[in-house]
Amino acid sequence: MRRAEALSLMLSLLPLGAHSRPRARELGLRIGRLAPGPLDAITDVKGVRVGHTTLNRGEGPLVPGQGPVRTGVTAILPHGGDLWHDKVPAAAFVLNGNGEVTGLHWVNESGLLEVPILLTSTMNVPRVADAAITWMLRKHPAIGITEDVVLPVVGECDDSALNDARGRHVTEADTLAALDGAAEGPVREGAVGAGTGMICYQFKGGIGTASRRAETPGGTFTVGALVNANHGRRPELLIAGVPVGREIPERLVPPGAHSIIIVLATDAPLDHRQLGRLAKRAALGLARTGSNAHHSSGDFVIAFSTATRLKAMGALETISRLTDEAADPLFEAAAEATEAAVIHSLLAAETTTGRDGHVAQALPLDRLRVVMAANGRPLAPGK
Amino acid sequence: MRRAEALSLMLSLLPLGAHSRPRARELGLRIGRLAPGPLDAITDVKGVRVGHTTLNRGEGPLVPGQGPVRTGVTAILPHGGDLWHDKVPAAAFVLNGNGEVTGLHWVNESGLLEVPILLTSTMNVPRVADAAITWMLRKHPAIGITEDVVLPVVGECDDSALNDARGRHVTEADTLAALDGAAEGPVREGAVGAGTGMICYQFKGGIGTASRRAETPGGTFTVGALVNANHGRRPELLIAGVPVGREIPERLVPPGAHSIIIVLATDAPLDHRQLGRLAKRAALGLARTGSNAHHSSGDFVIAFSTATRLKAMGALETISRLTDEAADPLFEAAAEATEAAVIHSLLAAETTTGRDGHVAQALPLDRLRVVMAANGRPLAPGK
Amino acid sequence: MRRAEALSLMLSLLPLGAHSRPRARELGLRIGRLAPGPLDAITDVKGVRVGHTTLNRGEGPLVPGQGPVRTGVTAILPHGGDLWHDKVPAAAFVLNGNGEVTGLHWVNESGLLEVPILLTSTMNVPRVADAAITWMLRKHPAIGITEDVVLPVVGECDDSALNDARGRHVTEADTLAALDGAAEGPVREGAVGAGTGMICYQFKGGIGTASRRAETPGGTFTVGALVNANHGRRPELLIAGVPVGREIPERLVPPGAHSIIIVLATDAPLDHRQLGRLAKRAALGLARTGSNAHHSSGDFVIAFSTATRLKAMGALETISRLTDEAADPLFEAAAEATEAAVIHSLLAAETTTGRDGHVAQALPLDRLRVVMAANGRPLAPGK
Amino acid sequence: MRRAEALSLMLSLLPLGAHSRPRARELGLRIGRLAPGPLDAITDVKGVRVGHTTLNRGEGPLVPGQGPVRTGVTAILPHGGDLWHDKVPAAAFVLNGNGEVTGLHWVNESGLLEVPILLTSTMNVPRVADAAITWMLRKHPAIGITEDVVLPVVGECDDSALNDARGRHVTEADTLAALDGAAEGPVREGAVGAGTGMICYQFKGGIGTASRRAETPGGTFTVGALVNANHGRRPELLIAGVPVGREIPERLVPPGAHSIIIVLATDAPLDHRQLGRLAKRAALGLARTGSNAHHSSGDFVIAFSTATRLKAMGALETISRLTDEAADPLFEAAAEATEAAVIHSLLAAETTTGRDGHVAQALPLDRLRVVMAANGRPLAPGK
Repeated sequence: MRRAEALSLMLSLLPLGAHSRPRARELGLRIGRLAPGPLDAITDVKGVRVGHTTLNRGEGPLVPGQGPVRTGVTAILPHGGDLWHDKVPAAAFVLNGNGEVTGLHWVNESGLLEVPILLTSTMNVPRVADAAITWMLRKHPAIGITEDVVLPVVGECDDSALNDARGRHVTEADTLAALDGAAEGPVREGAVGAGTGMICYQFKGGIGTASRRAETPGGTFTVGALVNANHGRRPELLIAGVPVGREIPERLVPPGAHSIIIVLATDAPLDHRQLGRLAKRAALGLARTGSNAHHSSGDFVIAFSTATRLKAMGALETISRLTDEAADPLFEAAAEATEAAVIHSLLAAETTTGRDGHVAQALPLDRLRVVMAANGRPLAPGK
Repeated sequence: MRRAEALSLMLSLLPLGAHSRPRARELGLRIGRLAPGPLDAITDVKGVRVGHTTLNRGEGPLVPGQGPVRTGVTAILPHGGDLWHDKVPAAAFVLNGNGEVTGLHWVNESGLLEVPILLTSTMNVPRVADAAITWMLRKHPAIGITEDVVLPVVGECDDSALNDARGRHVTEADTLAALDGAAEGPVREGAVGAGTGMICYQFKGGIGTASRRAETPGGTFTVGALVNANHGRRPELLIAGVPVGREIPERLVPPGAHSIIIVLATDAPLDHRQLGRLAKRAALGLARTGSNAHHSSGDFVIAFSTATRLKAMGALETISRLTDEAADPLFEAAAEATEAAVIHSLLAAETTTGRDGHVAQALPLDRLRVVMAANGRPLAPGK
Repeated sequence: MRRAEALSLMLSLLPLGAHSRPRARELGLRIGRLAPGPLDAITDVKGVRVGHTTLNRGEGPLVPGQGPVRTGVTAILPHGGDLWHDKVPAAAFVLNGNGEVTGLHWVNESGLLEVPILLTSTMNVPRVADAAITWMLRKHPAIGITEDVVLPVVGECDDSALNDARGRHVTEADTLAALDGAAEGPVREGAVGAGTGMICYQFKGGIGTASRRAETPGGTFTVGALVNANHGRRPELLIAGVPVGREIPERLVPPGAHSIIIVLATDAPLDHRQLGRLAKRAALGLARTGSNAHHSSGDFVIAFSTATRLKAMGALETISRLTDEAADPLFEAAAEATEAAVIHSLLAAETTTGRDGHVAQALPLDRLRVVMAANGRPLAPGK
Repeated sequence: MRRAEALSLMLSLLPLGAHSRPRARELGLRIGRLAPGPLDAITDVKGVRVGHTTLNRGEGPLVPGQGPVRTGVTAILPHGGDLWHDKVPAAAFVLNGNGEVTGLHWVNESGLLEVPILLTSTMNVPRVADAAITWMLRKHPAIGITEDVVLPVVGECDDSALNDARGRHVTEADTLAALDGAAEGPVREGAVGAGTGMICYQFKGGIGTASRRAETPGGTFTVGALVNANHGRRPELLIAGVPVGREIPERLVPPGAHSIIIVLATDAPLDHRQLGRLAKRAALGLARTGSNAHHSSGDFVIAFSTATRLKAMGALETISRLTDEAADPLFEAAAEATEAAVIHSLLAAETTTGRDGHVAQALPLDRLRVVMAANGRPLAPGK
């Protein structure tokens, strides 16, 4: 177990450029019509921060409570300031509710987000939520005394095919590390953080991110997406419209089809109603990767805007927002960023062997090249 | 105007085989993975009936109230019996509510459908709804006296780019004709019925239909879709995943992006909750044709099952339904049938010149052949 | 029939002071805690206009298509200006969807109201909606040509116990008259307009209105309610918390329990999300009159704010709104105004004999006095 | 602290008959029209079990993390069998989402409940949810290995006015004790379990329960309600329609208005859609106690039926349900049971002094007698 832990630590310390697998743009793979931001990541929305804690240790047969461990936690922060007092407009959409993101009733009632978003595996949700409260309590000594109590937002996907899910291995320290380590800039993708044990279209999945720029009559804005992709069946997989999944029918892990959490960020000034509409468009992007939102899949979207800070104080507040007509191009950006983020998760994730020797195979890039070329979309030569 | 009217009548009397344009299967175009039913139409769900009244008369400059007229009405009946007393389970989903389908509050509250579904253009909705009431009153002399009053289900798309929309030209007789003429068997597609004035991805759109067979642990069932497609912008259009719209950038009519109504029928035993989930999957199929559900688009889905008759009488009723696990394959069928129905509407619709010389160009099949071949999906030689 | 028509006309011309029945405040009946506005009516919200057309003719046995006629139409306008271009924030809530208000999908998607609200009986909805389109088309010659098409908002209750519902007697002229006659100032209540054939808690019901003033940290605002009350069973009826219905068990007309439409207006600056919350509180006020929202009752609420005009033009809009904390007192005002409006409808409505000699008895004020006194709430002496 | 702990333990061991405060029927207080079941409790629905763990220790100034502790956990189980494999139909309704009940997305998607319902204070939710997982894992060794992972259902109200909320004092053992101790029969009410630190209409609140029998054409059924009541402002309080709150304006604790969780159980055969409708009616009963569902109040309802066991296995399932017409009387029962449960919580709860000397005053029964008598509803002489 020690060797795996060391390796995991080492990998997590590697500079991002050291990814052994290329992203879409490096492959010459174009998803959609719109241009991505500089990082093609949710962090192209200025101020957004992402942090991961990856737990990857142990091998061999499952010993419930002990391992092997293939799980983790990922934190997304709308900005680096005081989330509790500088709230942001937000909304959620549930495409298929076979899963959980805690705190969404409050997000949709208030129209705002006042806590970080955390992603983890299903049965770790309470421990991660408890740690999120700890993190908030430490920052805000008045919470629960003279200020309101806090409702954490924690989304889950099920990693039990690879991970000792019963062990609930994510500790308070792991969650605090993801929150405190959250940073702007490039985002690690694939089998990291909450993505460590994910399976997507019966390939290894996990964290993926992307962004798209949309020109609107009110200015050019960015929509960023970050997904934890754990959904879909192999034959469904579409990459840029090409039915790649049907062409690579080998090495199917057990069915899966277990959820995706999608986080959308934008710097466009949108209010709750408009962000709810944006969130729905993430489902359209997801569909273009082949998803049919299976019964067993919890498909949740949460969207926020960084353009406004809501103090929830005083009697009146004045909000600037795009008109609905002007906001329309953001819908396409939301769909495309989501589609690209899912594909990025597949491109980034490396083959992972989990509990009981279960193997989640990485999307084989050589095979992908062949299939894409045969469908009139040759990838760039190289890596 | 007389010539156009005669032509319209003549066309409406032509046998279905006389379509001058091929359907997907005749082109060798495969949409999705699942097999269609014998007709690749909503009428593959036994008992379902479709009827159209097409209003296509007049040319030249718009004279509000007089024409030109490019509109109509389409009727979908779940079965040929007594809809009022032999109700069927049903549910609706609204992807984007910039539009109207009347009666959906009752469908979603009761979980059933007890009237025909009618489609027409936006400002004709009240006249068509009034005619639907007339049709129901004639069949049921106790309605409004000893039985409940009736709430019609009428969906709209906006055909004002081609049609004298202010004229509200659909008469009571037109609606009764669509209802009384509704029949099993092949369904006319394209610029017929409510589809007469539709524009889809800035090509001529309108009525399209398709079906898919799904094998479930509870048996093999059919999901059929019928759409009135009036949505989307050209560059978005995907056909079987190929970005066809970007490759045919010419002859764009005014933007459009004005709504799609999707009707799903299935012979699988599903209840209201399950049909609501099925309806959501239609949005996923729609997404695969490129839709981003624009602000100005009213994107509505209504789904019903023909497997059960609900009498809404007595104290107890016993319902058989698929378990959610068993019903899962129907989700893919719903998405694929919807995707195929949209493409069928584009394939069927012929170039239509409307008011003020506005031309909605048919999807050019020669160009389509070239684009599909260049993307590794050559169509069948022929027509 | 002529005599009844003349009487109906005469009544509709009577000054409001000529009501033969007192309102709550004249009776010394206090509903709730908050103070009403000067008129205790929805028109206490400045700019709001109400108009009625009452159709009350014929007697004796039902001759479907001919009468007797006990129906009508009521119009509520958010302001007296250009509704189409000066839209107002709005939202709807459906407590029980056994009924219809057309156009609500668009209200909830866009968050605004751009047409008048019309109320009528169930099977008149299409004819009233068609007339609403006519009214809008006359005012706006660009609708359906260079501007969008229009989606009318028409709510229904079922008056078939008293009225020849199958006759659909509301003409286009009737609806235009209600719209053009809509005025600020006192509002006629009871068996007028859409309320003509209503039955509420098995007494004669119909139109009722009320208002409440709420002091908020952002200023004092008014919430006005107007209801068309056609719901409830006698034993349920509560007046100011007193179980009046149980104490007056005589002369029950056939069960009823057929819907209530509630319109809320406020001059407080609230956005769509907040108005949706306000609309929900109307259900709480309704509950305090005894309603259990029966299966057969279509219980709909639509709320709008007159504080903002939305042009839906340009790229950016700036909105002022109360913070949620500051808006809280408006919730109580919405509940109380609704409760009072229902009671006002019962107080105002006079005994009405409809088709086939069906009699809807007015709430007997002498009996009410006795019951209220016995419950420690004596009414003012007098009338 | 020891003395308080000992007292708390002693109280929790007292036989139920030893309640020092009377229930509504003992006071001769009639809530609504329908007859209660034998216990006037949710446990009148056969099989339903309730368990409490009460944490009540420490006095004086708040020392965050140490106390004083006024909190707890309450468990409601639909039946005493295998909840995981013998699921029950269920649905949830959110009246105001300023709060949290975890797991509701899955309840509403699947239409069933497969775990116990737990209630606690806000920031204890994660720890209680984690313990619920522990409880399920112990019972079901295949969860997370060959069976699905588990999504706990835990609802919260904020007890921070009395309790050291930051301390999150509910341990895993406390939750397991509530679950394992859950029993049929009489239910302790007031300041017990999750109700320990609750404040309702600015009196001491907490757990309350009630039941109502409804005669339907399909048989006589029971609807039971259990609430954790922490909502409302004093002047709003209505008891059986009498504005009691206005008459007892003294000793107001800090505003409060912090949430109510309502659990409905019925032995009537209802499906998910119907239970969703039932859940909405709980809001109507809540309204009759005076609630205006304040902004800061999380008002959640979850309803389940014990008449059916859903195995979620196999391909087809056959469900018996009441028709909607037959189910209608259950709506009144749901509203009345909820209304009565809230009043029961106020009647049962005893004055509680919490952190920093904050006192939540019990509803003074002598004052209640006076007010009720003055309003024509004298209570029974006695206690």
